[in-house]
Amino acid sequence: MDPRTGLPVVGMVGAGQLARMTHQAAIALGQSLRILADSADDGAAVVATDVVVGDYRDLDDLRAFAEGCDVVTWDHEHVPNEHIVALREAGVSVHPGPEALHYAQDKAAMRARVAQLCSESAGAGRGIDSPRWTDLTADSDPSAALVAFGAEVGWPLVLKASRGGYDGKGVWVVDSAADAAEVLASGTPLLAEEKVSIKRELAADVARSPFGQVAAWPVVETVQRDGINVEVIAPAPGLDPELAARAQHFAITLASELGVTGVLAVELFETTDGRLLVNELAMRPHNSAHWTIEGSRTSQFEQHVRAVLDYPLGTTEQTAPVVVMANLLGGPHNLLAPQASPREDVTPKSLDERIHHTMARWPDVKIHLYGKGMRPGRKVGHVTALGTSLEDVRARAVAAADYLMNGERS
Amino acid sequence: MDPRTGLPVVGMVGAGQLARMTHQAAIALGQSLRILADSADDGAAVVATDVVVGDYRDLDDLRAFAEGCDVVTWDHEHVPNEHIVALREAGVSVHPGPEALHYAQDKAAMRARVAQLCSESAGAGRGIDSPRWTDLTADSDPSAALVAFGAEVGWPLVLKASRGGYDGKGVWVVDSAADAAEVLASGTPLLAEEKVSIKRELAADVARSPFGQVAAWPVVETVQRDGINVEVIAPAPGLDPELAARAQHFAITLASELGVTGVLAVELFETTDGRLLVNELAMRPHNSAHWTIEGSRTSQFEQHVRAVLDYPLGTTEQTAPVVVMANLLGGPHNLLAPQASPREDVTPKSLDERIHHTMARWPDVKIHLYGKGMRPGRKVGHVTALGTSLEDVRARAVAAADYLMNGERS
Repeated sequence: MDPRTGLPVVGMVGAGQLARMTHQAAIALGQSLRILADSADDGAAVVATDVVVGDYRDLDDLRAFAEGCDVVTWDHEHVPNEHIVALREAGVSVHPGPEALHYAQDKAAMRARVAQLCSESAGAGRGIDSPRWTDLTADSDPSAALVAFGAEVGWPLVLKASRGGYDGKGVWVVDSAADAAEVLASGTPLLAEEKVSIKRELAADVARSPFGQVAAWPVVETVQRDGINVEVIAPAPGLDPELAARAQHFAITLASELGVTGVLAVELFETTDGRLLVNELAMRPHNSAHWTIEGSRTSQFEQHVRAVLDYPLGTTEQTAPVVVMANLLGGPHNLLAPQASPREDVTPKSLDERIHHTMARWPDVKIHLYGKGMRPGRKVGHVTALGTSLEDVRARAVAAADYLMNGERS
Repeated sequence: MDPRTGLPVVGMVGAGQLARMTHQAAIALGQSLRILADSADDGAAVVATDVVVGDYRDLDDLRAFAEGCDVVTWDHEHVPNEHIVALREAGVSVHPGPEALHYAQDKAAMRARVAQLCSESAGAGRGIDSPRWTDLTADSDPSAALVAFGAEVGWPLVLKASRGGYDGKGVWVVDSAADAAEVLASGTPLLAEEKVSIKRELAADVARSPFGQVAAWPVVETVQRDGINVEVIAPAPGLDPELAARAQHFAITLASELGVTGVLAVELFETTDGRLLVNELAMRPHNSAHWTIEGSRTSQFEQHVRAVLDYPLGTTEQTAPVVVMANLLGGPHNLLAPQASPREDVTPKSLDERIHHTMARWPDVKIHLYGKGMRPGRKVGHVTALGTSLEDVRARAVAAADYLMNGERS
């Protein structure tokens, strides 16, 4: 308890944009998030008061940080699971806990558990499947296992690092065993998945409290380019309501069965033949729900704080019929507007100038900057547009994001 | 400029809830507000990184604080005007500046200037008036001046301290000169105003940038009880659109004529005979626009930051047809629910427990706590409800605020 406010203290390990936006939301609830940062320059560390600089891989640092926190939660999934177990054994309330996080940290474990839940009936899965997959590392001859798996499901295949991948990193599409030789030789723990024929990607985001209350946001479309999420559209346009309900039901079931507390993001493939397949899980606020800051009555950041504090959850209804988030990806790049190219006859403007122009041209688009250095392709912020016309809202979000990062285009 | 972000640095003098909520909004714009606090325990000081503890009445403290700020703004109007002049002379960009702030700091000066603008034609005032008033302190015999003014406009009269009043403090209703003797003898600089017959109070809130752009929110009703604002209803229910447009036009004219930068709140009386009279001015984010956090596409806090940075302003449209804010006033009190009384058979719950129950019962009501100690009648937070039915939205906002402060009622 914070003796000043009489309210519990939430500690968040990690000080990236998720912690930054969680802190923003926590302020309204009378909270001042306690943050464990790698560096005092981290995006969340530069906006919060109670910042501890330390190493999330070091149990002593974690223990010292947790002292005085009523609950500890995470802005990423890289804290060693055994440290989370040790914290809990030392009496720290950790949300989500190590059993749940295991499935966000280890893709092979996630695939096995999700496949089991999918196969369990009309109940859990209700028509949601896993892609076919195999744990190569579990085999004494991973190369032979890959060849056998390829013969079964067909080439090309997708190889994934079991741990640590994000934003397209740790994922390889291979046409043959020879093609996979280098990755296999690297010693990275790997699983192989069938390369499904994807219509688009979706996300079903929910939050669950320790008490067991669950709240679901509308299922969204997450538009990917070069393996990076560039846009999120809420709700997913034209999605069969029956499929949307199945996806929400599945995410709720997963949250309950895995004992997730806080936000759970379930990334899904919608296949060209109309099936939904589970892609990835994340157990923290997630890029696919940044649109909720303005687009839902309760943002994922407020909801995550409510959930880990075991407060009742907020309503998740949309505040506008169409909400589109576009990521701000450090320029120059063409991810948002593949047809456009930089104008070479125009002197590049500073970020501050580009903010001016963006605000002038799109006065209703909401800007979110993460206080991060610009590196090409790095997520340094996002913008959100709201309205009623899908075409118009998407166009405004994408144009504003592209201008903010890349300036004038021809 | 912040070398880390390449963005300008905004300093805010004062660390109350206005700075706290401004910081919350500023984070999205890539800002980390620099705050001058009286104490490290102030509401904004406990949620921001860049906090300087110092005395806003001390020019040296102000100068040191302003060092490295691209613009300095205010969360209250108590900074001595001559210090603001001195800061500007030292090259600090101050918004709003001393000429404008003079009219928020000195009620006699404000009354004189507003009366002049109101009398200037169909132009500025367009049917907005001042109450009749006189500056008692300017008279060599204030008591005689009061008697003469009472004979002219009728008793009772309202006495106001020219400086420093808020939340009903510094305001006295007197029935006679004898009744006023004690206040007159205190030496407080005073003005007297006719006691107008009020139907209700309104506020016209706008923001203006140094460039001269102005944006207006819908005119709201501010419900008062015992001189304290308890509820704000947006838009003001049943307000004649012609009167609403006049009020907005007047606020925009005032902002331009007085050279206000940032948010300007114009508090108005709607009289029983259908006129609008100016009550008070504030040149900072204002309680009457807290509803804009969720209720407008651009909150007053974001807008204030945009305005003082001379960024283009955001759109001010409402996000729901009816938005109601209810203040959280430290209990126990009956301000929100005058008919109710505390239940003496129920053990009072802690704030944390009351938050639980409030969230469970009103999952769509948004809670904002200011991190302030509870004193009876003190504003320690607010809640906001949104919807389409005025009756329903008001009932939810008021019930949630009353429960959050007072617990069970019979």
